[in-house]
Amino acid sequence: MSNHNGLVITAEAGLPFVDAIREIDAPVTDVYRAYTEPNLVAQWLGPREMITEMGEYNVTIGGRWQMTHRNPEGAAFGFRGVFHDVAPEDHIVQTFEFDGAPGHASLERVSFADLGGRTRITVHAVYQSVADRDAMVASGMERGMSEGYDRLEELLAAGK
Amino acid sequence: MSNHNGLVITAEAGLPFVDAIREIDAPVTDVYRAYTEPNLVAQWLGPREMITEMGEYNVTIGGRWQMTHRNPEGAAFGFRGVFHDVAPEDHIVQTFEFDGAPGHASLERVSFADLGGRTRITVHAVYQSVADRDAMVASGMERGMSEGYDRLEELLAAGK
Repeated sequence: MSNHNGLVITAEAGLPFVDAIREIDAPVTDVYRAYTEPNLVAQWLGPREMITEMGEYNVTIGGRWQMTHRNPEGAAFGFRGVFHDVAPEDHIVQTFEFDGAPGHASLERVSFADLGGRTRITVHAVYQSVADRDAMVASGMERGMSEGYDRLEELLAAGK
Repeated sequence: MSNHNGLVITAEAGLPFVDAIREIDAPVTDVYRAYTEPNLVAQWLGPREMITEMGEYNVTIGGRWQMTHRNPEGAAFGFRGVFHDVAPEDHIVQTFEFDGAPGHASLERVSFADLGGRTRITVHAVYQSVADRDAMVASGMERGMSEGYDRLEELLAAGK
């Protein structure tokens, strides 16, 4: 378990899960919008140094999503998936696959809790193996999530 | 681990996985067709006593699927999901959710191996919790899969 700026990530040994909780100082309506409008997603999701190029991002049941992170050296990291469930301002369930590890899909549930002007985001991701989960954690997931949520809060504080 | 007519199902305690292997005495082309054409799926998937009503069944990335099993007493059991990956005659990755347990989605990978006139089907399903996996196993999944694969083999032997 680790704590960065209020982000708590849990990845218990021997299980294929990652759990994360982070409170954001913004109303659930704004947080949900930042999760679902592609031009907003591109401004916060992932580590700070990455430029995010959004592909299709169709937040509806069966909708597909795709994005590419590009680092300062120009290396590209593509990700894609589909949306299994979309309940506005409540939860989103989607698949996730890194183009660099084809076939290693995971299933992620993001839940939003309205705390009255603040929002608690809860993430539960499950991988097809413990090794897949361990590889994802080792890839720098923690920093990416931590910086991402910091950027999300900054974006919403700026009134976007 | 259990073995029914060549079907081997593994559900290791304390992990959220179900694995299954079954060989079918039919070419991979036919097996894949029986997995993807809704009118064929309806004739084999699930326990023998169930009538299957197919809803949308769009086997493409982002496509949705829905089906309802109806038992002899008329009780209905609905299932739905979306397709994350579709590689013809090789593998299908899809989400799965039972309407009776909303929110408890799982991710299932089905792989097909061409054994030269025979086909090996390998299933790897991962649940959002060990409790979800245990509930699925307790629900009679094993009998459903066993009878389903027997019916699949009978269907293909009948030249469908």
